Amino acid sequence: MLTNMADWRRTHSCGVLTDKNIDEEVLLMGWVQRRRDHGGVIFIDLRDREGITQIVLNESAPVARETGESVRNEYVIAVKGKVAARPDGMVNLNIKTGMIDVIVSEIKILNNALTPPFMIDEHTDAAEDVRLKYRYLDLRRPQLQKNIMMRNNITKSIREYMWANGFIDIETPFLGKSTPEGARDYLVPSRVNAGKFYALPQSPQQFKQLLMVGGFERYFQIVKCFRDEDLRADRQPEFTQLDIEMSFIDRNDIIDMIEGLIAKLFKDILDKDVQRPFPTIMYKDAMELYGHDAPDTRFGLHLKTINNMVENCQFKVFSDTVKNGGIVKAVNAKGAGKAFSRKVLDELGEYVVSLGAKGLAYIKINDDGIQSPLVKNLGEELTYEIIKVMEGQSGDIIFFGAGDENLVNLTMSKLRLKLGNLLGLINPKQYNLVWVLEFPLLEWSPEDKRYAAVHHPFTAPMDEDIANIDSNPKSVRAKAYDLVLNGSEIGGGSIRIHRSDIQQKMFERLGLGEEEIKEKFGYFVDALKYGTPPHGGIAFGIDRIASIFAGTESIRDVIAFPKTQKATDLMSGAPDYVEPKQLKELYIKSDISANKPV
Amino acid sequence: MLTNMADWRRTHSCGVLTDKNIDEEVLLMGWVQRRRDHGGVIFIDLRDREGITQIVLNESAPVARETGESVRNEYVIAVKGKVAARPDGMVNLNIKTGMIDVIVSEIKILNNALTPPFMIDEHTDAAEDVRLKYRYLDLRRPQLQKNIMMRNNITKSIREYMWANGFIDIETPFLGKSTPEGARDYLVPSRVNAGKFYALPQSPQQFKQLLMVGGFERYFQIVKCFRDEDLRADRQPEFTQLDIEMSFIDRNDIIDMIEGLIAKLFKDILDKDVQRPFPTIMYKDAMELYGHDAPDTRFGLHLKTINNMVENCQFKVFSDTVKNGGIVKAVNAKGAGKAFSRKVLDELGEYVVSLGAKGLAYIKINDDGIQSPLVKNLGEELTYEIIKVMEGQSGDIIFFGAGDENLVNLTMSKLRLKLGNLLGLINPKQYNLVWVLEFPLLEWSPEDKRYAAVHHPFTAPMDEDIANIDSNPKSVRAKAYDLVLNGSEIGGGSIRIHRSDIQQKMFERLGLGEEEIKEKFGYFVDALKYGTPPHGGIAFGIDRIASIFAGTESIRDVIAFPKTQKATDLMSGAPDYVEPKQLKELYIKSDISANKPV
Repeated sequence: MLTNMADWRRTHSCGVLTDKNIDEEVLLMGWVQRRRDHGGVIFIDLRDREGITQIVLNESAPVARETGESVRNEYVIAVKGKVAARPDGMVNLNIKTGMIDVIVSEIKILNNALTPPFMIDEHTDAAEDVRLKYRYLDLRRPQLQKNIMMRNNITKSIREYMWANGFIDIETPFLGKSTPEGARDYLVPSRVNAGKFYALPQSPQQFKQLLMVGGFERYFQIVKCFRDEDLRADRQPEFTQLDIEMSFIDRNDIIDMIEGLIAKLFKDILDKDVQRPFPTIMYKDAMELYGHDAPDTRFGLHLKTINNMVENCQFKVFSDTVKNGGIVKAVNAKGAGKAFSRKVLDELGEYVVSLGAKGLAYIKINDDGIQSPLVKNLGEELTYEIIKVMEGQSGDIIFFGAGDENLVNLTMSKLRLKLGNLLGLINPKQYNLVWVLEFPLLEWSPEDKRYAAVHHPFTAPMDEDIANIDSNPKSVRAKAYDLVLNGSEIGGGSIRIHRSDIQQKMFERLGLGEEEIKEKFGYFVDALKYGTPPHGGIAFGIDRIASIFAGTESIRDVIAFPKTQKATDLMSGAPDYVEPKQLKELYIKSDISANKPV
Repeated sequence: MLTNMADWRRTHSCGVLTDKNIDEEVLLMGWVQRRRDHGGVIFIDLRDREGITQIVLNESAPVARETGESVRNEYVIAVKGKVAARPDGMVNLNIKTGMIDVIVSEIKILNNALTPPFMIDEHTDAAEDVRLKYRYLDLRRPQLQKNIMMRNNITKSIREYMWANGFIDIETPFLGKSTPEGARDYLVPSRVNAGKFYALPQSPQQFKQLLMVGGFERYFQIVKCFRDEDLRADRQPEFTQLDIEMSFIDRNDIIDMIEGLIAKLFKDILDKDVQRPFPTIMYKDAMELYGHDAPDTRFGLHLKTINNMVENCQFKVFSDTVKNGGIVKAVNAKGAGKAFSRKVLDELGEYVVSLGAKGLAYIKINDDGIQSPLVKNLGEELTYEIIKVMEGQSGDIIFFGAGDENLVNLTMSKLRLKLGNLLGLINPKQYNLVWVLEFPLLEWSPEDKRYAAVHHPFTAPMDEDIANIDSNPKSVRAKAYDLVLNGSEIGGGSIRIHRSDIQQKMFERLGLGEEEIKEKFGYFVDALKYGTPPHGGIAFGIDRIASIFAGTESIRDVIAFPKTQKATDLMSGAPDYVEPKQLKELYIKSDISANKPV
């Protein structure tokens, strides 16, 4: 085997040779994807990251052929040879190199390989934990190669746009200060400062605003962020954020800037033209029509609140709900009457119950009349009134949700997605972008018995609403914006408060005293007082964007070395126990019993 | 004050208007650098990140002028006005906008500002701790603005090159596994995996090699790395690394690739042409001539080992040193005889003593003979022989170092730098690049009584030396390379071992048993067995490169939010104490007494 590569240099990748190269002498290197022997001739599919080339070892080079007999799948080899046209009938038009073979004159085995624990191809059926343990082999599979390269192309495209528009890539610290707000921090004990801890950033929010105070005007960064959350299906303890902040702008400036970025991404990555400006929807309309602030607008099935119709009806479940401050919403699943069996309807009922609903009421409209136990409760007149309002026709099913506003929106929005899927209304090749605007600035926190910031306390209120901040806090809208793609929030941000008098007002509204402000936000509030320009920003989740573009189910498929839902790396074994000496140096003790799970 | 920017949009930055724009209506936004009143006319230097424009508020817009009276330094303002030629005699050719004024018609104060704790200009004499506390103000100073923007240009230039050459930007994990080798890790306690810890990466070394195993062939990343070291003068706990790895190459391929990168950087950032190929020096020659493996080659003053001349001389200090296995080295400080006073010579003596030397012997060559107490020890004949070998002439001083090899090289290399400075031999505008090659693979570890890897145990030996790995371990050279710029190692790397048989041999040579290999390097060694291509890589310190290019003394001047030598952030107060609840969730206890400093 060869250790010194000095005299062997690749001339081509395995993805480029065509009939234009016939008779050229070439030198290829790569992995053995497959070896076949046919009557004394060895055919090898040689693979590198660019593609596959078929190489042929025959009687013209008996030494090479003999060496070729020893190679196995995933061996690493180098071959010298001449490009030849494939015999008629052997041509494969499905791959770029399918017109040619390379007839080998010399071969070197660069490395051998054990038999991999699973096949390195698109059809692997290995369990995910095996693939994660041997991630370095999983990464050789065409799909993961493509995903990781696409992710590189995404961040490249983003950077090109940001630089072309005068944004400066500035690094912010990873070893920061723990803040009591937000999600749980990952902590890093300090050795030099006994008893103290750094926190890994959940986002560089304060630093990017300080860069605006510092006069950089346009900042961006593609940066790892950390949240020690209980990992839901598709979260990672470390995730990648595109972080952006601009000065001397208002909401529409940043929306316009970002639309340019997103349109470029779609063009560069998917070769799709995106229409600008993107549609917008106000938060309250999104909640009414979709029950969610990240609506999938690829299909209709709009929800409708029918409180005014049912508040005085005989059906106690509906009327009491309204009287107790709840809501009743309906959705017309067009055509579901024929599409859904009794079993499907039962499953939908179980689904919403699993989400917290009491049950799933519905009206099925048949050719020969209404089928629903509701009719006798609502009365025929109201039933038909509702059907009319919901534009119900024969073959439709109208579903209802009643109860607390948040719960109804949760269950009905999830039900809507389920219905869209079941009715085949969702086109996976369609990309619907929508800006969600005019989020509320404040929400009532029942635990703390005070108002809390929906985004964060530095988000600016809309100018026309500032006057209502005391008289009608709930009505105050924020200069915040989320960008939603096919029902996923891919980015969100806001114009920030840049005036210290408004910031002070905001803190008071949140019920914070002088001491508390100082302790929680001290240096940051000081910074605002030294000439802070109007500014705002946005952040995007790169993992999510990459997985949507790659068409994968999980963000793990667009991360080279992802962690499991238990936040472990099955390949390296992280996290792991460490030497007692290491802990001692950090002034900490392990204390397994401290927080026993119940 | 304005909160809604919607109707005010910048037309230009403060750095672009010239006499070509005369009579144009413009809208500028920025900070008040300076305000002067002259006979009822207000002149304001308006600053943004692009530059400064002088704006004039006069009787043509009395309302604006009145508003202008209230602005102070660092206020943020927006002005509408018309570009006008400056009156003769007021033109300032030192700045691009020095030909024009903007005669203001309307002004808006976007924000006011407290008086900054120091002047926002190039001449600040504020102490560094004050500047670090108010980093957001320090960042407004022209020098830091320039540095941070240059750093952005550096990473932009690097990325362009890497992408143009087929490298893929791939992110590696921050939450990894602690390894007993190398520097001290920063640890991150795991909440989900009680009692276990992640470690922040000291470098993505194993991951980048695994990406080669995974078939990506060309990887790069600009990534934060972490070392919990006792901070020397110019280290940061977190630092930024350009990390590169390539497959199917040998040493000269990567050297060639990197020279292209460095040449582009010099062209893009400093507009300098760098000659290729870069000079190379073998490790053993670097140690002989410079006493250091990162030589500053901008000046001569080569060291010379004179063991063979002094091993039998009468001067016991020299001859005993040689007999005890030490070395004697000399350097001829040309022209120092006239340049150095007695006081300077005393200071040099104190300097080398502070580094561990016993003293500083020298021979001063005057017009009228030799001046040195050494003469009577060495004898005239040997003295003149040494002078001849060292090419001593009247006016020179020859300095000597004797003792343990490492100590002599340390003291003489530092002395050489001092001499170069004192004699004015170092041109700060000159950039000398040199590759240092053929590092030893192994070094004897007296503590462990075994050989240790000079780089790391995955560095490949040179092919022609593999056979000597048992018979003469010290003589085995590594396929390692450092790139040195003006005496600073800016990058270093190696060709890696890709064959598991050689890796096994290497481990044996390092005295590791099967169990130890498995425990320390388990999954990584496994990975090598599944078809690993020949590969190698390099890593560069971005902070150091940026500081050399920016001509700053400290890397803190090229980092937006640096930490102090005590690893603290004076602005945010990180690290800090955290809530007991946070520690409990992480299964740790603070234990301040664990590691009391002595």
